[in-house]
Amino acid sequence: MLGSIEAGGTKFVCAIGTEEGEILDRITIPTRTPNETIPEVIQFFRKEKISALGIGSFGPIDVKKESPTYGNILNTPKLAWQNYPFLETMQNALQVPIGFTTDVNAAALGEYVFGAAKNLQSCLYITIGTGIGAGAVFQGELLEGLSHPEMGHIIVRKHPDDSFEGVCPYHHDCLEGLASGPAIEKRWGKKGAELSDVKKVWELEAYYIAQALVQYIMILMPEKIIIGGGVSNQTSIFPLIHQQVKELLNGYFTPPLLNDNIVDYIVKPGLNGDAGIIGGLVLAKRELEN
Amino acid sequence: MLGSIEAGGTKFVCAIGTEEGEILDRITIPTRTPNETIPEVIQFFRKEKISALGIGSFGPIDVKKESPTYGNILNTPKLAWQNYPFLETMQNALQVPIGFTTDVNAAALGEYVFGAAKNLQSCLYITIGTGIGAGAVFQGELLEGLSHPEMGHIIVRKHPDDSFEGVCPYHHDCLEGLASGPAIEKRWGKKGAELSDVKKVWELEAYYIAQALVQYIMILMPEKIIIGGGVSNQTSIFPLIHQQVKELLNGYFTPPLLNDNIVDYIVKPGLNGDAGIIGGLVLAKRELEN
Repeated sequence: MLGSIEAGGTKFVCAIGTEEGEILDRITIPTRTPNETIPEVIQFFRKEKISALGIGSFGPIDVKKESPTYGNILNTPKLAWQNYPFLETMQNALQVPIGFTTDVNAAALGEYVFGAAKNLQSCLYITIGTGIGAGAVFQGELLEGLSHPEMGHIIVRKHPDDSFEGVCPYHHDCLEGLASGPAIEKRWGKKGAELSDVKKVWELEAYYIAQALVQYIMILMPEKIIIGGGVSNQTSIFPLIHQQVKELLNGYFTPPLLNDNIVDYIVKPGLNGDAGIIGGLVLAKRELEN
Repeated sequence: MLGSIEAGGTKFVCAIGTEEGEILDRITIPTRTPNETIPEVIQFFRKEKISALGIGSFGPIDVKKESPTYGNILNTPKLAWQNYPFLETMQNALQVPIGFTTDVNAAALGEYVFGAAKNLQSCLYITIGTGIGAGAVFQGELLEGLSHPEMGHIIVRKHPDDSFEGVCPYHHDCLEGLASGPAIEKRWGKKGAELSDVKKVWELEAYYIAQALVQYIMILMPEKIIIGGGVSNQTSIFPLIHQQVKELLNGYFTPPLLNDNIVDYIVKPGLNGDAGIIGGLVLAKRELEN
């Protein structure tokens, strides 16, 4: 039996499951302070005998195993969680091997092993919601160097008709600053879910997302791009993204996946909303095997 | 004894060397048509008994081993080389194991094993010259998915005072379209080498290069970025790039390498102009070991 945590900004999803990615039990706990949330998390896993745990956490986090602060949450705007020793706390409580990475890395791993990128050698998973983040898997390994990527904060070209200043406290009008859920809400005065039928909202959104995907393609060349998060529930945005990515690439690449077959390249998650939690099971399994 | 080819748009550098990256003999052959250039290349390697060869080629090339056109040059503007079966020709002529990748991937590998990124787990090598291209190594492996990356063709934000339309035939004002050697020459009416003392040329150049590096950092997080190619000979550009990268990141990351120590992060090649040819020796060694 394996454990998995998808630690998000608003909720922690905790699950027990198998190494085949099957979820047997799950619980959702609101993200308050560590002192309030973590004891409930520990209690859930103590009920069952798990042999390993995988954590996909909101970031930024320290994922460098050789670092003295490995497993900590870093300079998050959620002040109560700043410098919180997440991994160490869970290790002390549960005494099992624990894999630790970002929420989007875990989701990328879940989709790679069991979802839309099953049987491929690489994929990228991007979530577009409260924040924007992405993770990538190449030849089975999560892409990490100096740290985990921060793909939500890339530079995008502003639409000439878009005068919105952006919501990113660091970069103002980076991708997350212009295209995250809070950016949509601040720009249009309503949440995205209430704007489903306003075409110009999703045309502009696709304009920024398509740019980001083109950057990921040029730099990473993943074999599949999977879009999750709240914005991916706006089904009407996918054809707009496909069209704009093709226009931006402008025939530079010849593979059908980047041309006529782009609908098979930029896709919805194969695991629906469970990519992260199932990815946590994969992480747990890997940690057990090491 | 190992062989290495750095196949560029204007010249082929061919070398014999050791698995320690030492070059023992080398020759430079102008890039004309395959019928003119390749026989000279083969003749050079036939002189010596090599046990394996590594090729770093100008692109785009097919690097997917399972593809029927693996080892071919693809839709290059050099018409005589379009669809040329580079790898197959060399294999038929030399009958040794041959590693095949892009010129920038080979250079990244050379810097990773013997150069500026020695002892690190990842690096990115970018060349800025006639074209702009980059390759990346993570945990010893070249980053490749659907194909090799095309990092020179990323989208950049146009400088508000720059009205130059760009030289890229596909994307006009992508990075390569705005910041390659031909872009500098067309925008300013002189080659970069003749503009060394014109500050505004290098400020604008750094503006675009810094944006590209920030995208690579956000997406890949390499542990070192190495800038090669003609533009890197303009030593005055490095402080401008360092400054602009820091300004664009705006304190988002805390590691010293992305802040006060950025001069140790974005660097010149450790192997000078030999990164690609030495990387070819690494490729040859790896192919021999497989």
